[in-house]
Amino acid sequence: MQCPIARCLDETGDWWSMLILRSAFMGVRRFQHFQERLGIAPNTLARRLEALTEHGLLVRQTYNERPPREEYELTEKGLDFLPVLLAMAAWGNRWLAPEGVAIECVDPETGRAIHPLVVDRETGRELRPGTVALRAGPGARPAVKRGLENWVLLGGCDAGEASSSRSARRGA
Amino acid sequence: MQCPIARCLDETGDWWSMLILRSAFMGVRRFQHFQERLGIAPNTLARRLEALTEHGLLVRQTYNERPPREEYELTEKGLDFLPVLLAMAAWGNRWLAPEGVAIECVDPETGRAIHPLVVDRETGRELRPGTVALRAGPGARPAVKRGLENWVLLGGCDAGEASSSRSARRGA
Repeated sequence: MQCPIARCLDETGDWWSMLILRSAFMGVRRFQHFQERLGIAPNTLARRLEALTEHGLLVRQTYNERPPREEYELTEKGLDFLPVLLAMAAWGNRWLAPEGVAIECVDPETGRAIHPLVVDRETGRELRPGTVALRAGPGARPAVKRGLENWVLLGGCDAGEASSSRSARRGA
Repeated sequence: MQCPIARCLDETGDWWSMLILRSAFMGVRRFQHFQERLGIAPNTLARRLEALTEHGLLVRQTYNERPPREEYELTEKGLDFLPVLLAMAAWGNRWLAPEGVAIECVDPETGRAIHPLVVDRETGRELRPGTVALRAGPGARPAVKRGLENWVLLGGCDAGEASSSRSARRGA
């Protein structure tokens, strides 16, 4: 699949991998600490850390020679995943905190609450349903190009209706 | 878990659910079209649609009485998930498109490329590692409050180092 969301999910798209990344952002680096914090089975944790390391989101660092001990650090690619986690946290706080927000983002200097928002880098405009379309880029394979022949709106009900009938036509 | 990321993942955090939501944003509404587009097994698709409907991200709508036919529409809660998918797409395009970007976001009116960016709603400042800390909110249970007693930076290496030793202390 050439879809960037599918590719993102290939590397990070399971419950544990995302929570391991979250914990890494909270400063966890060692196998034992991930295990304690997440309550994850050691073999599952080992597999996920291995995959995240293979995909280049984490890198192993030796912190002790004798006995040999390693810890996991976020790479540039891993650090760049923070916006995804912040968007998730914002959604979770909006929809899944009936008892009140339990964990909020704040400015580390002033303590002011921060509300993560996804905007267009150029205009600063909030990206809501209906304000974003998709287009085949320079790397698109022919099948992807055909699939996106009519821009497909990431939209609300009207856009959905329109592209639903387009999908139906394409499927015919 | 009171973590909003964990709660978000509880409802959306598997490969198929996120791709189903993505397809819904692209206008797919009917069981058969999800199946064709995703190449997903019918029983897996049925389970995922059921869960997304139960969690209130999708809602079933009857579009034909005889024979009875239903389609799935994004709810307000589902539509509000778009920022997460856009943040993922942006990351995927930055890190996982070695052959060139295949699918890009554009302004539906002007066709100008859009680059999703996660910022602080108030200041418009980009949220990068090191610029965000966490704090216990009004709904936090005592255990969560204790866990966040010292603000934990979502930071780069230095922040990681600091909170790693804090984690170690807490574990002791």
